[in-house]
Amino acid sequence: MSNTTTEAGPDGAAGLLRGTPFVVIEGVDGSGKSTQVRMLSEVLSARGVAHRVTEEPGGSPEGVILRDLLLGAGGSRLNGAGEMLAVSVARQLHVEGLIRPALARGEAVLCDRFALSTVAYQGYGRGVSLDLIRRVTAAATGGLEPDICWVLDVPPGVGRGRRSAAEGSPDRIESEGSEFMERVRRGYLEAAAEHPRIEVVDAVRGAKAVHADLLARMDARFPGLGG
Amino acid sequence: MSNTTTEAGPDGAAGLLRGTPFVVIEGVDGSGKSTQVRMLSEVLSARGVAHRVTEEPGGSPEGVILRDLLLGAGGSRLNGAGEMLAVSVARQLHVEGLIRPALARGEAVLCDRFALSTVAYQGYGRGVSLDLIRRVTAAATGGLEPDICWVLDVPPGVGRGRRSAAEGSPDRIESEGSEFMERVRRGYLEAAAEHPRIEVVDAVRGAKAVHADLLARMDARFPGLGG
Repeated sequence: MSNTTTEAGPDGAAGLLRGTPFVVIEGVDGSGKSTQVRMLSEVLSARGVAHRVTEEPGGSPEGVILRDLLLGAGGSRLNGAGEMLAVSVARQLHVEGLIRPALARGEAVLCDRFALSTVAYQGYGRGVSLDLIRRVTAAATGGLEPDICWVLDVPPGVGRGRRSAAEGSPDRIESEGSEFMERVRRGYLEAAAEHPRIEVVDAVRGAKAVHADLLARMDARFPGLGG
Repeated sequence: MSNTTTEAGPDGAAGLLRGTPFVVIEGVDGSGKSTQVRMLSEVLSARGVAHRVTEEPGGSPEGVILRDLLLGAGGSRLNGAGEMLAVSVARQLHVEGLIRPALARGEAVLCDRFALSTVAYQGYGRGVSLDLIRRVTAAATGGLEPDICWVLDVPPGVGRGRRSAAEGSPDRIESEGSEFMERVRRGYLEAAAEHPRIEVVDAVRGAKAVHADLLARMDARFPGLGG
């Protein structure tokens, strides 16, 4: 067969070449991701650093449709493979429609969840082949990878307690049991042990302490952000 | 990493064991697929054979959402990999929600497009890795494969002429040029040359002649359908 392949693009980890970083915050539900993204964004805004805050699943109008499909009642017939494929469609749209254009404009990108969530939740959590996830992710992102990924680590019981204290009822994936969440956490920790650009951050501490930690890491790694 | 994999299930090509066949009609737009599915369904109905007619993309409420995403204006940011992933999400829902339950009830299934369309359109047409498509398809279907797949073969110019004579304006994929459609056709023909359960049927002939051909093939292959 003679057709050419376009499974992955050429530019993973090109953030330092681009000049503006692509930063991802990861962690189980209730680990404080959205709070930390907001606090980092406030620092960048105060410094006058152009940046874009975004999240997965979502990040594009079609991505929101796919998120509803994934997390709502309609997702009940999605198995682990289907979940992985659905978030990957949303990721392709997110990368092409929002992340790459923002980076190309010279904006930093702060993203709440990205491909590592798929490894943790659908791979470790649901048992989908990690090799398949890696290949699908490369195809969906065209090879774009975060410059740094900080995993906010809390024991699942802590995350669950925080989550239930927040507003709203849990979605389909948040309703999974503690064994599932332990597997998800293990996925994050094993990925961090293997990849130098995935770092584990103790998030049992209060939000201000976690923020100070992340800000120190950001300024050490990306001096161009004006720290 | 110790998690188990669920990339593919155990039961491809189990139709003859199941007793009821899973039959797929494929071909480029305008090749007459929906007409032939309807004519075969009429024969089965007249014989009192329980069967289900379905199609891809679609085949489930969520699949219809994904089809609209794929073919409508919102699909404009989907690249080849994104298309492949989107149709595969719809396929997972279709297999679990409709095809497997119908086969389990002892009904034959006649399906207008299935996984071979992804090989032809996104693989040959858009250049997505055929190996990636094969692995994603196995994950999305749990290994379920058609018992027979008939490719209605017409030169792309014939299909295009028929399509433009029908109602409605072409969708996003139908609007591709003739080079794209030639690659799609080549995908179908090369797949048929490699797989014994994919057969090419000359569809330049009139609908009645094509129907007689398909009916003879169906009765020879599946005597349990009362031919």
